[in-house]
Amino acid sequence: MSIGKTHWAIAEGYIPGKSVDDSRELLSHETACILNANDAPAHVRILLYFADREPVGPYEVTVAPRRTLHLRFNDLTDPAPVPRDTDYASTFESDVPIVVQHTRLDSRHPNIALLSTMAFAGN
Amino acid sequence: MSIGKTHWAIAEGYIPGKSVDDSRELLSHETACILNANDAPAHVRILLYFADREPVGPYEVTVAPRRTLHLRFNDLTDPAPVPRDTDYASTFESDVPIVVQHTRLDSRHPNIALLSTMAFAGN
Amino acid sequence: MSIGKTHWAIAEGYIPGKSVDDSRELLSHETACILNANDAPAHVRILLYFADREPVGPYEVTVAPRRTLHLRFNDLTDPAPVPRDTDYASTFESDVPIVVQHTRLDSRHPNIALLSTMAFAGN
Amino acid sequence: MSIGKTHWAIAEGYIPGKSVDDSRELLSHETACILNANDAPAHVRILLYFADREPVGPYEVTVAPRRTLHLRFNDLTDPAPVPRDTDYASTFESDVPIVVQHTRLDSRHPNIALLSTMAFAGN
Repeated sequence: MSIGKTHWAIAEGYIPGKSVDDSRELLSHETACILNANDAPAHVRILLYFADREPVGPYEVTVAPRRTLHLRFNDLTDPAPVPRDTDYASTFESDVPIVVQHTRLDSRHPNIALLSTMAFAGN
Repeated sequence: MSIGKTHWAIAEGYIPGKSVDDSRELLSHETACILNANDAPAHVRILLYFADREPVGPYEVTVAPRRTLHLRFNDLTDPAPVPRDTDYASTFESDVPIVVQHTRLDSRHPNIALLSTMAFAGN
Repeated sequence: MSIGKTHWAIAEGYIPGKSVDDSRELLSHETACILNANDAPAHVRILLYFADREPVGPYEVTVAPRRTLHLRFNDLTDPAPVPRDTDYASTFESDVPIVVQHTRLDSRHPNIALLSTMAFAGN
Repeated sequence: MSIGKTHWAIAEGYIPGKSVDDSRELLSHETACILNANDAPAHVRILLYFADREPVGPYEVTVAPRRTLHLRFNDLTDPAPVPRDTDYASTFESDVPIVVQHTRLDSRHPNIALLSTMAFAGN
Protein backbone atom coordinates (compact mmCIF):
# COMPACT_ATOMS: atom_id res chain seq x y z
CA MET A 1 0.00 0.00 0.00
CA SER A 2 1.41 3.36 -1.07
CA ILE A 3 0.03 6.38 0.73
CA GLY A 4 1.17 9.94 1.19
CA LYS A 5 2.52 12.98 -0.57
CA THR A 6 5.99 14.12 -1.60
CA HIS A 7 5.95 17.62 -0.04
CA TRP A 8 5.19 18.38 3.60
CA ALA A 9 5.51 21.30 6.00
CA ILE A 10 5.42 21.83 9.77
CA ALA A 11 4.99 25.49 10.72
CA GLU A 12 5.49 24.96 14.46
CA GLY A 13 8.87 24.02 15.84
CA TYR A 14 10.39 24.58 19.27
CA ILE A 15 12.64 22.34 21.32
CA PRO A 16 12.52 23.32 25.00
CA GLY A 17 16.02 23.73 26.35
CA LYS A 18 15.21 22.23 29.71
CA SER A 19 14.04 18.82 30.90
CA VAL A 20 13.41 17.51 34.36
CA ASP A 21 14.34 14.05 33.14
CA ASP A 22 17.39 13.45 30.96
CA SER A 23 16.52 9.91 29.91
CA ARG A 24 16.15 9.70 26.13
CA GLU A 25 12.46 8.87 26.34
CA LEU A 26 11.53 11.79 28.62
CA LEU A 27 13.95 14.44 27.43
CA SER A 28 12.16 17.42 25.88
CA HIS A 29 12.16 16.76 22.16
CA GLU A 30 10.42 17.21 18.83
CA THR A 31 9.93 14.43 16.32
CA ALA A 32 9.01 14.21 12.65
CA CYS A 33 7.44 10.79 12.29
CA ILE A 34 7.90 9.65 8.69
CA LEU A 35 6.10 6.65 7.22
CA ASN A 36 7.36 5.14 3.98
CA ALA A 37 4.76 2.54 2.99
CA ASN A 38 6.30 2.08 -0.46
CA ASP A 39 8.43 -0.77 -1.75
CA ALA A 40 11.16 1.72 -2.65
CA PRO A 41 13.35 3.78 -0.30
CA ALA A 42 12.35 7.37 0.43
CA HIS A 43 15.10 9.94 0.08
CA VAL A 44 13.97 12.91 2.16
CA ARG A 45 15.44 16.41 2.15
CA ILE A 46 14.57 18.59 5.14
CA LEU A 47 14.94 22.36 5.37
CA LEU A 48 14.70 24.30 8.64
CA TYR A 49 13.31 27.84 8.64
CA PHE A 50 13.90 30.47 11.30
CA ALA A 51 12.54 33.87 12.31
CA ASP A 52 15.56 35.97 11.47
CA ARG A 53 18.02 34.11 9.27
CA GLU A 54 18.25 32.03 6.10
CA PRO A 55 17.04 28.40 6.06
CA VAL A 56 19.49 25.69 7.09
CA GLY A 57 19.84 22.44 5.19
CA PRO A 58 19.17 20.25 3.47
CA TYR A 59 19.30 17.57 6.08
CA GLU A 60 19.14 14.28 4.21
CA VAL A 61 17.61 11.11 5.56
CA THR A 62 16.63 7.84 3.92
CA VAL A 63 13.67 5.83 5.09
CA ALA A 64 13.86 2.20 3.98
CA PRO A 65 10.94 0.56 2.15
CA ARG A 66 8.02 -0.38 4.42
CA ARG A 67 9.57 1.31 7.44
CA THR A 68 8.85 4.25 9.72
CA LEU A 69 11.47 6.68 10.98
CA HIS A 70 10.65 8.76 14.03
CA LEU A 71 13.27 11.41 13.46
CA ARG A 72 14.14 13.59 16.41
CA PHE A 73 15.00 17.14 15.47
CA ASN A 74 17.23 17.04 18.56
CA ASP A 75 19.43 14.50 16.78
CA LEU A 76 20.02 16.48 13.59
CA THR A 77 23.65 17.61 13.31
CA ASP A 78 24.55 17.88 9.60
CA PRO A 79 24.82 20.63 8.41
CA ALA A 80 24.08 22.09 11.91
CA PRO A 81 22.32 21.19 15.15
CA VAL A 82 18.87 22.62 15.86
CA PRO A 83 19.08 25.44 18.40
CA ARG A 84 17.06 25.01 21.60
CA ASP A 85 14.49 27.52 22.86
CA THR A 86 14.22 28.88 19.32
CA ASP A 87 11.23 29.14 16.97
CA TYR A 88 11.65 27.20 13.74
CA ALA A 89 9.65 25.49 11.00
CA SER A 90 10.46 22.72 8.55
CA THR A 91 9.72 21.39 5.08
CA PHE A 92 10.14 17.87 3.73
CA GLU A 93 10.68 16.83 0.11
CA SER A 94 10.72 13.15 -0.78
CA ASP A 95 11.19 11.25 -4.06
CA VAL A 96 8.32 8.88 -3.17
CA PRO A 97 5.07 9.53 -1.26
CA ILE A 98 5.45 9.61 2.52
CA VAL A 99 3.35 10.62 5.52
CA VAL A 100 4.72 13.11 8.09
CA GLN A 101 3.40 13.73 11.60
CA HIS A 102 4.79 16.21 14.12
CA THR A 103 5.07 15.55 17.86
CA ARG A 104 6.58 17.41 20.80
CA LEU A 105 7.21 16.12 24.30
CA ASP A 106 7.80 18.96 26.75
CA SER A 107 9.28 17.89 30.08
CA ARG A 108 10.34 21.26 31.43
CA HIS A 109 7.95 20.80 34.33
CA PRO A 110 7.72 17.70 36.52
CA ASN A 111 4.92 16.30 34.41
CA ILE A 112 5.14 15.99 30.68
CA ALA A 113 2.99 17.70 28.06
CA LEU A 114 2.42 16.38 24.56
CA LEU A 115 1.25 17.81 21.26
CA SER A 116 0.88 16.18 17.86
CA THR A 117 -0.56 17.00 14.46
CA MET A 118 -0.41 15.62 10.99
CA ALA A 119 1.90 17.86 8.96
CA PHE A 120 0.55 19.89 6.00
CA ALA A 121 0.69 17.99 2.72
CA GLY A 122 1.50 20.06 -0.34
CA ASN A 123 0.68 19.11 -3.87
CA MET B 1 -24.60 10.55 5.95
CA SER B 2 -21.52 8.93 4.45
CA ILE B 3 -18.22 10.68 5.13
CA GLY B 4 -14.61 9.68 4.96
CA LYS B 5 -11.98 7.95 2.87
CA THR B 6 -10.93 4.34 2.38
CA HIS B 7 -7.19 4.73 3.01
CA TRP B 8 -5.63 6.29 6.11
CA ALA B 9 -2.22 6.51 7.75
CA ILE B 10 -0.84 7.45 11.16
CA ALA B 11 2.91 8.08 11.08
CA GLU B 12 3.29 8.43 14.86
CA GLY B 13 2.89 5.45 17.15
CA TYR B 14 4.32 4.76 20.59
CA ILE B 15 2.74 3.03 23.56
CA PRO B 16 4.54 3.98 26.77
CA GLY B 17 5.41 0.86 28.73
CA LYS B 18 4.71 2.43 32.09
CA SER B 19 1.62 3.85 33.75
CA VAL B 20 1.12 5.25 37.22
CA ASP B 21 -2.47 4.06 37.09
CA ASP B 22 -3.40 0.60 35.86
CA SER B 23 -7.12 1.20 35.50
CA ARG B 24 -8.22 0.70 31.91
CA GLU B 25 -9.17 4.35 31.49
CA LEU B 26 -5.88 5.75 32.75
CA LEU B 27 -3.45 3.13 31.50
CA SER B 28 -1.02 4.54 28.94
CA HIS B 29 -2.52 3.71 25.58
CA GLU B 30 -2.95 4.64 21.93
CA THR B 31 -6.24 4.54 20.11
CA ALA B 32 -7.37 4.60 16.50
CA CYS B 33 -10.86 6.06 16.63
CA ILE B 34 -12.77 4.80 13.60
CA LEU B 35 -16.12 6.23 12.53
CA ASN B 36 -18.28 4.26 10.10
CA ALA B 37 -21.18 6.57 9.21
CA ASN B 38 -22.35 4.30 6.39
CA ASP B 39 -25.31 1.94 6.32
CA ALA B 40 -22.96 -0.94 5.48
CA PRO B 41 -20.30 -2.55 7.68
CA ALA B 42 -16.68 -1.41 7.29
CA HIS B 43 -14.11 -4.16 6.97
CA VAL B 44 -10.81 -2.59 7.96
CA ARG B 45 -7.33 -4.03 7.45
CA ILE B 46 -4.56 -2.51 9.56
CA LEU B 47 -0.83 -2.81 8.97
CA LEU B 48 1.80 -1.84 11.53
CA TYR B 49 5.16 -0.51 10.38
CA PHE B 50 8.37 -0.47 12.40
CA ALA B 51 11.83 1.09 12.25
CA ASP B 52 13.84 -2.04 11.63
CA ARG B 53 11.65 -4.94 10.51
CA GLU B 54 8.91 -5.86 8.07
CA PRO B 55 5.31 -4.71 8.62
CA VAL B 56 3.05 -6.85 10.80
CA GLY B 57 -0.54 -7.63 9.83
CA PRO B 58 -3.10 -7.36 8.59
CA TYR B 59 -5.09 -6.89 11.74
CA GLU B 60 -8.73 -7.17 10.73
CA VAL B 61 -11.56 -5.36 12.42
CA THR B 62 -15.17 -4.77 11.43
CA VAL B 63 -17.01 -1.62 12.36
CA ALA B 64 -20.78 -2.07 12.21
CA PRO B 65 -22.96 0.36 10.23
CA ARG B 66 -23.50 3.73 11.98
CA ARG B 67 -21.07 2.88 14.77
CA THR B 68 -17.73 4.11 16.07
CA LEU B 69 -14.95 1.83 17.26
CA HIS B 70 -12.26 3.33 19.47
CA LEU B 71 -9.69 0.64 18.87
CA ARG B 72 -6.82 0.47 21.33
CA PHE B 73 -3.55 -0.59 19.77
CA ASN B 74 -2.81 -2.07 23.22
CA ASP B 75 -5.57 -4.61 22.62
CA LEU B 76 -4.36 -5.91 19.25
CA THR B 77 -3.13 -9.50 19.50
CA ASP B 78 -3.69 -11.21 16.13
CA PRO B 79 -1.27 -11.74 14.43
CA ALA B 80 0.92 -10.25 17.21
CA PRO B 81 0.71 -7.80 20.11
CA VAL B 82 2.08 -4.28 19.68
CA PRO B 83 5.42 -3.91 21.46
CA ARG B 84 5.63 -1.21 24.14
CA ASP B 85 8.22 1.57 24.18
CA THR B 86 8.71 1.02 20.44
CA ASP B 87 8.25 3.40 17.50
CA TYR B 88 5.65 2.27 15.01
CA ALA B 89 3.23 3.61 12.37
CA SER B 90 0.01 2.27 10.90
CA THR B 91 -2.13 2.21 7.77
CA PHE B 92 -5.84 1.49 7.43
CA GLU B 93 -7.66 0.16 4.38
CA SER B 94 -11.44 -0.08 4.42
CA ASP B 95 -14.01 -1.27 1.88
CA VAL B 96 -16.26 1.73 2.64
CA PRO B 97 -15.36 5.33 3.58
CA ILE B 98 -14.38 5.80 7.23
CA VAL B 99 -12.81 8.53 9.37
CA VAL B 100 -9.74 7.76 11.49
CA GLN B 101 -8.38 9.83 14.38
CA HIS B 102 -5.31 9.06 16.48
CA THR B 103 -5.05 9.63 20.24
CA ARG B 104 -2.50 8.82 22.92
CA LEU B 105 -2.90 9.00 26.66
CA ASP B 106 0.44 8.97 28.44
CA SER B 107 0.27 8.28 32.18
CA ARG B 108 3.91 7.56 32.87
CA HIS B 109 3.97 10.55 35.19
CA PRO B 110 1.45 11.25 37.96
CA ASN B 111 -0.52 13.52 35.70
CA ILE B 112 -1.65 12.45 32.27
CA ALA B 113 -0.71 13.96 28.92
CA LEU B 114 -2.85 13.72 25.79
CA LEU B 115 -2.29 14.12 22.08
CA SER B 116 -4.68 13.72 19.17
CA THR B 117 -4.75 14.34 15.45
CA MET B 118 -6.89 13.41 12.52
CA ALA B 119 -5.07 10.70 10.58
CA PHE B 120 -3.86 11.34 7.01
CA ALA B 121 -6.45 10.47 4.38
CA GLY B 122 -5.10 8.98 1.16
CA ASN B 123 -6.85 9.01 -2.14
CA MET C 1 -14.30 35.83 3.69
CA SER C 2 -16.07 32.50 3.30
CA ILE C 3 -14.03 29.44 4.25
CA GLY C 4 -14.83 25.88 5.14
CA LYS C 5 -16.86 22.85 4.15
CA THR C 6 -20.42 21.73 4.78
CA HIS C 7 -19.70 18.21 6.10
CA TRP C 8 -17.39 17.40 8.99
CA ALA C 9 -16.61 14.45 11.23
CA ILE C 10 -14.83 13.88 14.54
CA ALA C 11 -14.03 10.20 15.15
CA GLU C 12 -12.78 10.69 18.72
CA GLY C 13 -15.16 11.58 21.50
CA TYR C 14 -14.96 10.98 25.24
CA ILE C 15 -16.04 13.18 28.11
CA PRO C 16 -14.27 12.14 31.31
CA GLY C 17 -16.79 11.74 34.10
CA LYS C 18 -14.55 13.19 36.75
CA SER C 19 -12.95 16.56 37.31
CA VAL C 20 -10.80 17.84 40.14
CA ASP C 21 -12.18 21.30 39.53
CA ASP C 22 -15.90 21.93 38.97
CA SER C 23 -15.59 25.47 37.68
CA ARG C 24 -16.95 25.75 34.16
CA GLU C 25 -13.57 26.57 32.68
CA LEU C 26 -11.72 23.66 34.25
CA LEU C 27 -14.42 21.00 34.24
CA SER C 28 -13.53 18.04 32.03
CA HIS C 29 -15.19 18.76 28.70
CA GLU C 30 -15.16 18.35 24.94
CA THR C 31 -15.85 21.15 22.52
CA ALA C 32 -16.69 21.44 18.85
CA CYS C 33 -15.44 24.86 17.85
CA ILE C 34 -17.46 26.05 14.87
CA LEU C 35 -16.51 29.08 12.78
CA ASN C 36 -19.09 30.62 10.49
CA ALA C 37 -17.23 33.24 8.46
CA ASN C 38 -20.16 33.74 6.08
CA ASP C 39 -22.61 36.61 5.94
CA ALA C 40 -25.48 34.13 6.35
CA PRO C 41 -26.38 32.03 9.40
CA ALA C 42 -25.18 28.42 9.54
CA HIS C 43 -27.79 25.84 10.45
CA VAL C 44 -25.85 22.86 11.73
CA ARG C 45 -27.16 19.36 12.34
CA ILE C 46 -25.05 17.13 14.60
CA LEU C 47 -25.29 13.37 14.92
CA LEU C 48 -23.61 11.38 17.69
CA TYR C 49 -22.39 7.85 17.02
CA PHE C 50 -21.72 5.17 19.63
CA ALA C 51 -20.06 1.77 19.87
CA ASP C 52 -23.13 -0.33 20.46
CA ARG C 53 -26.32 1.56 19.62
CA GLU C 54 -27.94 3.68 16.93
CA PRO C 55 -26.87 7.31 16.39
CA VAL C 56 -28.57 10.00 18.47
CA GLY C 57 -29.74 13.26 16.94
CA PRO C 58 -29.93 15.48 15.15
CA TYR C 59 -28.86 18.13 17.59
CA GLU C 60 -29.55 21.45 15.90
CA VAL C 61 -27.55 24.60 16.44
CA THR C 62 -27.41 27.88 14.58
CA VAL C 63 -24.23 29.91 14.31
CA ALA C 64 -24.90 33.54 13.45
CA PRO C 65 -23.11 35.21 10.52
CA ARG C 66 -19.46 36.12 11.24
CA ARG C 67 -19.49 34.40 14.62
CA THR C 68 -17.83 31.43 16.29
CA LEU C 69 -19.61 28.99 18.56
CA HIS C 70 -17.50 26.87 20.88
CA LEU C 71 -20.12 24.22 21.52
CA ARG C 72 -19.55 22.00 24.52
CA PHE C 73 -20.78 18.45 24.01
CA ASN C 74 -21.37 18.51 27.79
CA ASP C 75 -24.10 21.07 27.23
CA LEU C 76 -26.10 19.12 24.63
CA THR C 77 -29.45 17.99 25.97
CA ASP C 78 -31.93 17.77 23.09
CA PRO C 79 -32.73 15.04 22.13
CA ALA C 80 -30.51 13.52 24.87
CA PRO C 81 -27.46 14.38 26.99
CA VAL C 82 -24.07 12.96 26.06
CA PRO C 83 -23.11 10.10 28.37
CA ARG C 84 -19.85 10.49 30.31
CA ASP C 85 -17.02 7.96 30.25
CA THR C 86 -18.38 6.66 26.95
CA ASP C 87 -16.78 6.44 23.49
CA TYR C 88 -18.60 8.42 20.83
CA ALA C 89 -18.04 10.17 17.51
CA SER C 90 -19.86 12.99 15.72
CA THR C 91 -20.77 14.37 12.31
CA PHE C 92 -21.73 17.90 11.34
CA GLU C 93 -23.85 18.98 8.37
CA SER C 94 -24.28 22.69 7.64
CA ASP C 95 -26.15 24.62 4.97
CA VAL C 96 -23.19 26.97 4.49
CA PRO C 97 -19.44 26.31 4.70
CA ILE C 98 -18.07 26.18 8.25
CA VAL C 99 -14.84 25.14 9.97
CA VAL C 100 -14.92 22.62 12.84
CA GLN C 101 -12.16 21.94 15.37
CA HIS C 102 -12.26 19.43 18.22
CA THR C 103 -10.82 20.03 21.69
CA ARG C 104 -10.84 18.13 24.97
CA LEU C 105 -9.82 19.38 28.39
CA ASP C 106 -9.26 16.51 30.81
CA SER C 107 -9.08 17.53 34.47
CA ARG C 108 -9.42 14.13 36.11
CA HIS C 109 -5.98 14.60 37.61
CA PRO C 110 -4.77 17.66 39.49
CA ASN C 111 -3.22 19.09 36.38
CA ILE C 112 -5.11 19.44 33.15
CA ALA C 113 -4.38 17.75 29.82
CA LEU C 114 -5.44 19.13 26.44
CA LEU C 115 -5.89 17.74 22.96
CA SER C 116 -7.08 19.41 19.77
CA THR C 117 -7.33 18.65 16.09
CA MET C 118 -9.04 20.07 13.08
CA ALA C 119 -12.02 17.85 12.28
CA PHE C 120 -12.16 15.87 9.02
CA ALA C 121 -13.77 17.81 6.17
CA GLY C 122 -15.88 15.78 3.79
CA ASN C 123 -16.75 16.79 0.27
CA MET D 1 10.28 25.33 -2.25
CA SER D 2 6.85 26.94 -2.22
CA ILE D 3 4.22 25.15 -0.14
CA GLY D 4 0.91 26.12 1.38
CA LYS D 5 -2.36 27.89 0.72
CA THR D 6 -3.49 31.50 0.80
CA HIS D 7 -6.57 31.10 3.06
CA TRP D 8 -6.55 29.48 6.49
CA ALA D 9 -8.85 29.24 9.50
CA ILE D 10 -8.55 28.25 13.16
CA ALA D 11 -11.92 27.61 14.78
CA GLU D 12 -10.57 27.20 18.32
CA GLY D 13 -9.17 30.14 20.21
CA TYR D 14 -8.89 30.79 23.93
CA ILE D 15 -6.12 32.50 25.88
CA PRO D 16 -6.30 31.50 29.54
CA GLY D 17 -6.18 34.58 31.73
CA LYS D 18 -4.04 32.98 34.38
CA SER D 19 -0.54 31.56 34.47
CA VAL D 20 1.48 30.10 37.28
CA ASP D 21 4.61 31.32 35.59
CA ASP D 22 4.90 34.80 34.10
CA SER D 23 8.06 34.21 32.10
CA ARG D 24 7.44 34.75 28.40
CA GLU D 25 8.07 31.12 27.53
CA LEU D 26 5.70 29.68 30.15
CA LEU D 27 2.97 32.32 30.16
CA SER D 28 -0.36 30.94 28.97
CA HIS D 29 -0.53 31.81 25.29
CA GLU D 30 -1.79 30.91 21.84
CA THR D 31 0.32 31.05 18.73
CA ALA D 32 -0.31 31.04 14.99
CA CYS D 33 2.87 29.60 13.52
CA ILE D 34 3.21 30.90 9.96
CA LEU D 35 5.71 29.50 7.48
CA ASN D 36 6.54 31.49 4.37
CA ALA D 37 8.71 29.22 2.23
CA ASN D 38 8.49 31.54 -0.78
CA ASP D 39 11.10 33.89 -2.14
CA ALA D 40 8.63 36.77 -1.79
CA PRO D 41 7.26 38.36 1.40
CA ALA D 42 3.86 37.19 2.67
CA HIS D 43 1.42 39.94 3.57
CA VAL D 44 -1.06 38.35 5.93
CA ARG D 45 -4.39 39.78 7.05
CA ILE D 46 -5.92 38.23 10.18
CA LEU D 47 -9.52 38.53 11.34
CA LEU D 48 -10.70 37.52 14.80
CA TYR D 49 -14.23 36.17 15.28
CA PHE D 50 -16.18 36.12 18.53
CA ALA D 51 -19.34 34.55 19.93
CA ASP D 52 -21.40 37.69 20.31
CA ARG D 53 -19.94 40.61 18.39
CA GLU D 54 -18.59 41.57 14.97
CA PRO D 55 -15.14 40.41 13.84
CA VAL D 56 -12.14 42.54 14.76
CA GLY D 57 -9.39 43.34 12.30
CA PRO D 58 -7.65 43.09 10.03
CA TYR D 59 -4.45 42.59 11.93
CA GLU D 60 -1.67 42.89 9.39
CA VAL D 61 1.63 41.07 9.59
CA THR D 62 4.39 40.51 7.08
CA VAL D 63 6.46 37.36 7.02
CA ALA D 64 9.74 37.81 5.20
CA PRO D 65 10.77 35.41 2.42
CA ARG D 66 12.02 32.03 3.67
CA ARG D 67 11.13 32.81 7.28
CA THR D 68 8.75 31.57 9.94
CA LEU D 69 6.79 33.82 12.28
CA HIS D 70 5.39 32.29 15.45
CA LEU D 71 2.83 34.98 16.12
CA ARG D 72 1.40 35.12 19.61
CA PHE D 73 -2.21 36.18 19.71
CA ASN D 74 -1.32 37.60 23.14
CA ASP D 75 0.88 40.17 21.40
CA LEU D 76 -1.72 41.51 18.95
CA THR D 77 -2.67 45.10 19.77
CA ASP D 78 -3.71 46.85 16.55
CA PRO D 79 -6.64 47.41 16.12
CA ALA D 80 -7.33 45.86 19.56
CA PRO D 81 -5.84 43.38 22.04
CA VAL D 82 -7.27 39.85 22.22
CA PRO D 83 -9.44 39.46 25.31
CA ARG D 84 -8.43 36.71 27.78
CA ASP D 85 -10.74 33.92 28.93
CA THR D 86 -12.85 34.52 25.83
CA ASP D 87 -13.79 32.18 22.96
CA TYR D 88 -12.59 33.34 19.59
CA ALA D 89 -11.62 32.05 16.13
CA SER D 90 -9.42 33.42 13.36
CA THR D 91 -8.91 33.54 9.62
CA PHE D 92 -5.75 34.26 7.65
CA GLU D 93 -5.51 35.65 4.11
CA SER D 94 -2.12 35.90 2.44
CA ASP D 95 -0.96 37.14 -0.97
CA VAL D 96 1.37 34.14 -1.34
CA PRO D 97 1.00 30.52 -0.15
CA ILE D 98 1.76 29.99 3.54
CA VAL D 99 1.32 27.23 6.12
CA VAL D 100 -0.46 27.96 9.43
CA GLN D 101 -0.37 25.83 12.59
CA HIS D 102 -2.15 26.58 15.87
CA THR D 103 -0.68 25.96 19.32
CA ARG D 104 -1.76 26.72 22.87
CA LEU D 105 0.28 26.51 26.03
CA ASP D 106 -1.90 26.50 29.13
CA SER D 107 -0.06 27.15 32.39
CA ARG D 108 -2.99 27.86 34.66
CA HIS D 109 -2.02 24.84 36.73
CA PRO D 110 1.46 24.11 38.05
CA ASN D 111 2.19 21.87 35.09
CA ILE D 112 1.69 22.99 31.54
CA ALA D 113 -0.66 21.51 28.97
CA LEU D 114 -0.17 21.79 25.22
CA LEU D 115 -2.34 21.44 22.15
CA SER D 116 -1.53 21.89 18.48
CA THR D 117 -3.14 21.30 15.11
CA MET D 118 -2.54 22.28 11.56
CA ALA D 119 -5.06 25.00 10.67
CA PHE D 120 -7.75 24.40 8.02
CA ALA D 121 -6.62 25.32 4.52
CA GLY D 122 -9.26 26.85 2.30
CA ASN D 123 -9.17 26.88 -1.46
